Amino acid sequence: MASFSYRLQEFLFRIIEEIPPLASFVNKWAINRVVKRARFRPHPLSTRHDYVSWAGLTDRRWSGRHLPPSERVDMPDPEALADLFRRRDGHQRMCPKSTCLFPAFAQYLTDGFIRTETEDLTAGGETVKTRLKRNTSNHEIDLCPLYGRTEDQTDALRLRSNRKGSRGRMRTQTINGEDYAPFLYKDGKVDPDFAVLDHPLGESKIDDEKRARLFAFGGDRANSVPQTAMMNTLFLREHNRLAGEIETENPDWDDDRVFETARNTVIVLFIKIVVEDYINHISPMPFNLRADPAAAWNAVWNKPNWITTEFSLLYRWHALIPDQIRWGGKMQPVGSTFMNNSLLIDGGLGGAFADISATQAAELGPRNTAEPLLHIEVSSIEQDRFCQLAGFSDYCDYLGQNRPFSFESISSDPEVAGMLRKFYRNTRDVDFHVGLFCEDRVKNSPLPNVILIFVALDAFSQALTNPLLSKHVFKPSTFSGPGWKAIQNTSTIREVLARNVTTELGDTFVGFTRREWQPE
Amino acid sequence: MASFSYRLQEFLFRIIEEIPPLASFVNKWAINRVVKRARFRPHPLSTRHDYVSWAGLTDRRWSGRHLPPSERVDMPDPEALADLFRRRDGHQRMCPKSTCLFPAFAQYLTDGFIRTETEDLTAGGETVKTRLKRNTSNHEIDLCPLYGRTEDQTDALRLRSNRKGSRGRMRTQTINGEDYAPFLYKDGKVDPDFAVLDHPLGESKIDDEKRARLFAFGGDRANSVPQTAMMNTLFLREHNRLAGEIETENPDWDDDRVFETARNTVIVLFIKIVVEDYINHISPMPFNLRADPAAAWNAVWNKPNWITTEFSLLYRWHALIPDQIRWGGKMQPVGSTFMNNSLLIDGGLGGAFADISATQAAELGPRNTAEPLLHIEVSSIEQDRFCQLAGFSDYCDYLGQNRPFSFESISSDPEVAGMLRKFYRNTRDVDFHVGLFCEDRVKNSPLPNVILIFVALDAFSQALTNPLLSKHVFKPSTFSGPGWKAIQNTSTIREVLARNVTTELGDTFVGFTRREWQPE
Repeated sequence: MASFSYRLQEFLFRIIEEIPPLASFVNKWAINRVVKRARFRPHPLSTRHDYVSWAGLTDRRWSGRHLPPSERVDMPDPEALADLFRRRDGHQRMCPKSTCLFPAFAQYLTDGFIRTETEDLTAGGETVKTRLKRNTSNHEIDLCPLYGRTEDQTDALRLRSNRKGSRGRMRTQTINGEDYAPFLYKDGKVDPDFAVLDHPLGESKIDDEKRARLFAFGGDRANSVPQTAMMNTLFLREHNRLAGEIETENPDWDDDRVFETARNTVIVLFIKIVVEDYINHISPMPFNLRADPAAAWNAVWNKPNWITTEFSLLYRWHALIPDQIRWGGKMQPVGSTFMNNSLLIDGGLGGAFADISATQAAELGPRNTAEPLLHIEVSSIEQDRFCQLAGFSDYCDYLGQNRPFSFESISSDPEVAGMLRKFYRNTRDVDFHVGLFCEDRVKNSPLPNVILIFVALDAFSQALTNPLLSKHVFKPSTFSGPGWKAIQNTSTIREVLARNVTTELGDTFVGFTRREWQPE
Repeated sequence: MASFSYRLQEFLFRIIEEIPPLASFVNKWAINRVVKRARFRPHPLSTRHDYVSWAGLTDRRWSGRHLPPSERVDMPDPEALADLFRRRDGHQRMCPKSTCLFPAFAQYLTDGFIRTETEDLTAGGETVKTRLKRNTSNHEIDLCPLYGRTEDQTDALRLRSNRKGSRGRMRTQTINGEDYAPFLYKDGKVDPDFAVLDHPLGESKIDDEKRARLFAFGGDRANSVPQTAMMNTLFLREHNRLAGEIETENPDWDDDRVFETARNTVIVLFIKIVVEDYINHISPMPFNLRADPAAAWNAVWNKPNWITTEFSLLYRWHALIPDQIRWGGKMQPVGSTFMNNSLLIDGGLGGAFADISATQAAELGPRNTAEPLLHIEVSSIEQDRFCQLAGFSDYCDYLGQNRPFSFESISSDPEVAGMLRKFYRNTRDVDFHVGLFCEDRVKNSPLPNVILIFVALDAFSQALTNPLLSKHVFKPSTFSGPGWKAIQNTSTIREVLARNVTTELGDTFVGFTRREWQPE
């Protein structure tokens, strides 16, 4: 049963949305209010040096920092802290608001720009640890899982044809009448055409059958689970669909121009979905925020993006993943879905989105991580310590929140508060990573408070500062007629899906917010 | 004899400068007025593509563009246009306002960020031409001629010692009791310690004696003439002097921290000189603009730097160089000074600055280029055409100036106007590069009108957007006590020189503006 105050807000916002200039003003005000919670970029420090240095201010291979490094002594053992994340009697709590489309999109989105150098742990000792401070990010929402991180990778993924009817397209193959990316492997070896792509992470752990069905994707994590492959396949199809429309409207444009214009469009469509579908799902408010580029044009926070080391920790949302996910209409244990593209191919893209949207997500928070994933929480705490992050309390203060005055003000769950008291001398000592996930979930949002604030502020300050949305670039000519129209007419991922499936979606449910959800 | 209006302005500005809050307000207003003459970054186009593309918006190896490419047909032959630059009866006009310190500083400044890939013409045909559209710039005023463009180069130039009394220093050698950079060559070969440095441009054209005296500098043009070597030597000494003070005040700081803090300081000192000494010399107004970082903090034009293709042409100021320059108290023909560091070493740094400041610059404008340099004007026009720059008239319009309505409104010199009429059908056809240098010099400035506007606007929009001047970075802790003090107390290059010469400067004249100059 929704609270009276939620219903009242909803009523007021409906009125505001009926008056476009007022809605636009409120939208701008709301976005600015969210972004102004934290200091604007450029941040004085990155992980390069513990003091201000030229390399620290300019070399974005090192991660940014919201707060300076902090010496913290006599801290509890990360292994012991795993108890805070371990499920109560093995029981998984579910999230009242979200479907599994929410974590699927979050993963696909963040794999594009949170790119800590953690994975390739071939080197030993110190080197490995230093990599935790570095990244391979372009620091933009540039859909690099689809287009690749570098121009060479983009080239490899393109069809490269000036023939009429194929200009501007990306390479595809057809399976069961549907378009997918080509397979990465050919006769048991990486297809030489795709040698420049980043190698899929975790690929060494799978069998030949799964390996044969890895797609040639721009992102090294886009094959990780069929949910991310599903996302990438959707935007791949949308790219080629738009390229077709753009080519038809502009028969004198060459392969490059059609490609670049479709890409401009797909990136902006993606950003629109980030704000208008994803962030509105996260937001506890009944007001629909809009991705209005003009909100950032004169904003003092419109400064170059630089992904922070804090951001790489606060997006560790594996607790959202339920133990079973629906694929092909059947619940599948999560372990069996790892790099298993057959689940996507067999059910087709429309079926995949329907299945994911029919699966309830688990709740992000303490005592809800599956046993086999507990080691990730431990290594996240180790990363937090190695990067010398300040305590959770300092981040509350940084974001203009009250510092927690008691363990109970972090978690209203007496058992969690009691465990925190057992581990830490006082609330100032609580690790950033621990505090983030022990906080209560915000009513009507799938996220706890500090995560919610950081995600919203970074979403706006990183999405709306995209060069494609800047004042002199965000114009119809940048996107062509069909591109501009698609941008105007797209707010949700479902709308993109409807344009790219072989059979009509009809009233199939596809969305982040569960159909059964009732405001709290 | 100064005009009445100049004296009146001067009087008013003296009053304004006596009232600090008013001076600060007027300074901010004046800077904003200058910068707002043109469109703010990000520019929609770069030289990457002729339409908006992701690579075009993000890959800064390609140069930015103020105006889109323009198809221009039946244009006059660049070789023929050389007549517009050829001296009248071989006679060189002199600049009433500037000493040769002005072109020396301009060259040193711009070599740091206008880095068109023009020089290494080893490849043939198309490749060479494409390079005219590309650059190797870091797009910041980062003193890369001193510190190198890359971290490897910086490393090679550093002393790298944690011994007390030598922390944070750059490598030097002592000649005649003065500090200079080490020589690049050792026993006739490049010292392997310096193999990572960019090779000095034009080095193949000099003899072994000159080669033996090339310095190991961060910039590939810093050895070009002894004036640039003199500038780099000055800032090298200032770096080491500051490192000494910083180390003394902070005995627990290691080599890296002392180095980085001195570097932060020297970069900001340099920017202060750019605005408060160099730009104030260029400005025709008697008001002293100040490098107030706060003027840019909330500015809508505070966007990432990206050097434009237009900028690489409008800074071709070789006409400023007189035929003879004073070195060691004697006038030397310019040809003999090329890569000739002996002139600097023999006279010492203080003597060099005194000699350069005692040499009058020539006037920038039409009919004033020395015969042996005319081919550079021709290739500049060819570069203008290859990069498909819009016409001069379009740039006037872009900057909010009237389009020239007649050839006489470009040049008040009837002979120059007549030649323009002979070459071009109408004023809209005049090439950007030709119009720039045929315009009348602005009264009380060394520069013609459009060049002046572009230089001033890019100086502010590129200098004041430096990350070291940003709101949360420009603080005493970024520069240390001695660094912060030096920043507060430095406005002119003479002040830096006075701290870094072996004998007192006394009343030796060192400056951009000739002592004999009288406002027009």
